Amino acid sequence: MSFHVRIKKGSDKMDIKEKALNLHEELVGKIEVNLKKEINGLDDLALLYSPGVAAPCLEIANNEDDVYKYTMKSNTVLVVSDGSAVLGLGNIKAKAAIPVMEGKSALFKQFADLNAIPICLDTQDNEEIIRTIKNIAPVFGGINLEDFNAPRCFEIENRLKEMLDIPVFHDDQHGTAIVCLAGLINSLRLVEKDKDVKIVINGLGAAGSAITKLLVDYGFTNFSLCGRNGEFFNGRITQIDSATLIDKIQKNKRNETGKSLADALVGADVFIGVSQPDVLTKEMVKTMNDKPIVFALANPNPEINYENAKESKIAVLATGRSDYPNQINNVLVFPGLFKGALASRKAKITDEMKLIAAKALASIIKEEELTNEYIIPDAFDKRVVDVISQTIIDYKY
Amino acid sequence: MSFHVRIKKGSDKMDIKEKALNLHEELVGKIEVNLKKEINGLDDLALLYSPGVAAPCLEIANNEDDVYKYTMKSNTVLVVSDGSAVLGLGNIKAKAAIPVMEGKSALFKQFADLNAIPICLDTQDNEEIIRTIKNIAPVFGGINLEDFNAPRCFEIENRLKEMLDIPVFHDDQHGTAIVCLAGLINSLRLVEKDKDVKIVINGLGAAGSAITKLLVDYGFTNFSLCGRNGEFFNGRITQIDSATLIDKIQKNKRNETGKSLADALVGADVFIGVSQPDVLTKEMVKTMNDKPIVFALANPNPEINYENAKESKIAVLATGRSDYPNQINNVLVFPGLFKGALASRKAKITDEMKLIAAKALASIIKEEELTNEYIIPDAFDKRVVDVISQTIIDYKY
Repeated sequence: MSFHVRIKKGSDKMDIKEKALNLHEELVGKIEVNLKKEINGLDDLALLYSPGVAAPCLEIANNEDDVYKYTMKSNTVLVVSDGSAVLGLGNIKAKAAIPVMEGKSALFKQFADLNAIPICLDTQDNEEIIRTIKNIAPVFGGINLEDFNAPRCFEIENRLKEMLDIPVFHDDQHGTAIVCLAGLINSLRLVEKDKDVKIVINGLGAAGSAITKLLVDYGFTNFSLCGRNGEFFNGRITQIDSATLIDKIQKNKRNETGKSLADALVGADVFIGVSQPDVLTKEMVKTMNDKPIVFALANPNPEINYENAKESKIAVLATGRSDYPNQINNVLVFPGLFKGALASRKAKITDEMKLIAAKALASIIKEEELTNEYIIPDAFDKRVVDVISQTIIDYKY
Repeated sequence: MSFHVRIKKGSDKMDIKEKALNLHEELVGKIEVNLKKEINGLDDLALLYSPGVAAPCLEIANNEDDVYKYTMKSNTVLVVSDGSAVLGLGNIKAKAAIPVMEGKSALFKQFADLNAIPICLDTQDNEEIIRTIKNIAPVFGGINLEDFNAPRCFEIENRLKEMLDIPVFHDDQHGTAIVCLAGLINSLRLVEKDKDVKIVINGLGAAGSAITKLLVDYGFTNFSLCGRNGEFFNGRITQIDSATLIDKIQKNKRNETGKSLADALVGADVFIGVSQPDVLTKEMVKTMNDKPIVFALANPNPEINYENAKESKIAVLATGRSDYPNQINNVLVFPGLFKGALASRKAKITDEMKLIAAKALASIIKEEELTNEYIIPDAFDKRVVDVISQTIIDYKY
């Protein structure tokens, strides 16, 4: 689930809720399944169904790879959730998660012209989930895991990646991380700082842990990682020791260093929050290094509210909200990423592919366009999906 | 898998194969997923996705039944197979079955305006299959089981019916049985015979066993059941002792009576074959009672070829082929059945519903229209889906 919001004021909030309910009731499902070619008589039936359909079946039976030539597998993505971490709503289970998965499927179509099928799972047992997704995989060219809570999401994704020969991608982790890294690359260009910046990451669920890992992979080394009760890691990470790192994050050790978030922020260059509203105060920002960069991604209410942020002389502020500048929105990545991966039949989304996707996304904004209110492209920027998709297509393992 | 075919002559057979392959290659998937309403900017995004989508999610979390009000569950069917009994091709597994499941989904849309999603399962273990289908059920309003082989299909269907609160329907069994019964009702009207006719059923897989059960439920009592090696039951079945019957059929006991199909046919009024090509000879037909009714449903080549059948003075001949009169085609039933069941939120398709569907289908052909070449409506007869659907909607348990 990405972070975009669009709430203008209190009254509009009410309005959106009511409008959204009405629209959902009117549509009764936001997506539909259509025929690419109508069946208008016995001749069509004979070609598209029996007996003609036996021909592609036999081709595939003889050469499994032909499934990409003759079926929807080439252009169809599974959007699957167990409803355990939906939006900011928490563990609302399978049925209540359907509107979000339908919506995500709609985004796949709108932004990448891919077919996406929403499935919500009536189980929250990891073994059952892994087996179920593996069992239904044949018809899909890629799998977008959505709204599985941490740390369960790590095992589900890793095991499925090992088992399947199609891309498996937990968007809440990696989509967020890629957009975040792209935004950070451009923010640093703007404030003219390099990879040696000190980065505080607050909140280490699915998104926070993936952001940390991707930032280490990119070459940042100076981190302070904070969980719910304060900082638990402070120091250099000079190589991609992701196993240890992720292990630490998964255990989400609390306050190992005895320091608070406020302590961690002293002299920091970058704050990345994927945590709770209002945990970042003006006072804390004042203790940060010159030209502080703040990514306050809690949704819908960021770690620091917009007015406080402006008063704090933050150099670059990014949020998850579409009504503020610099929205860190997953829709900037997953459509192009899957489009490229399916078009070039990538079997996996590797860590390196995440890096090049982030760099490609950042590069869309030219030097002369870059401002502190434009460090990341808009969700509806037509260039985005093509750039990301082509980057993935061109990538060689 | 229904029995319709359209093969005119040898050369056309080649032609259909090639044309079908080309068409499948051109389409790369016969169905697609579309948005019911496009997402053309941040306002649309806010209503159809975040943050607006939280509103229907919360409604459903608070009242599970609202899933029908706000989501695709109301109008979406799962078409699922393990690829174990696809067309006449046998056990070709998941990937090779995809073209058929896509085709079936296309039929759901074309004939009933329902969304159907094809899933092919990468397992042929019954327990895995049952758990997988149960786990993915939340997003669906009904489940069409397709091309599972017998006797595995019986357990899969029965267990899922017990577990789920949406209709579960193995079309190869019940779709075929319903169309077959409808055709038989009209054939008997034509030859002016009643329920006391002696019926020989040859071939007792998924379709044959379901036909037998439905015919008993309807009130026929005089049966001879034949497996691959000859007759194994001959006598009266006066009540719906389906457990014993299905058990007998599942075990597919061979030649218990010591008689052959030829012996069984002596004095029979009706032959229903869901078996192999050419097992019914002209000589056998001659030993049948006056005005014999022959449903030769083996696909694509029937139990008796058309020329032999005509020479044999069969009163009514039905086949699975679209190029002969009286095609027993499942597409006459499943679209309307699911359409009605979803529209009226039926939790199950009961045996009684199958009977009323068959009667409704038969009733579409008026007395004055009835001929021995028109005992069952055409697959593209627009009346069919509405009649079946309304019958199911009107049905009260």
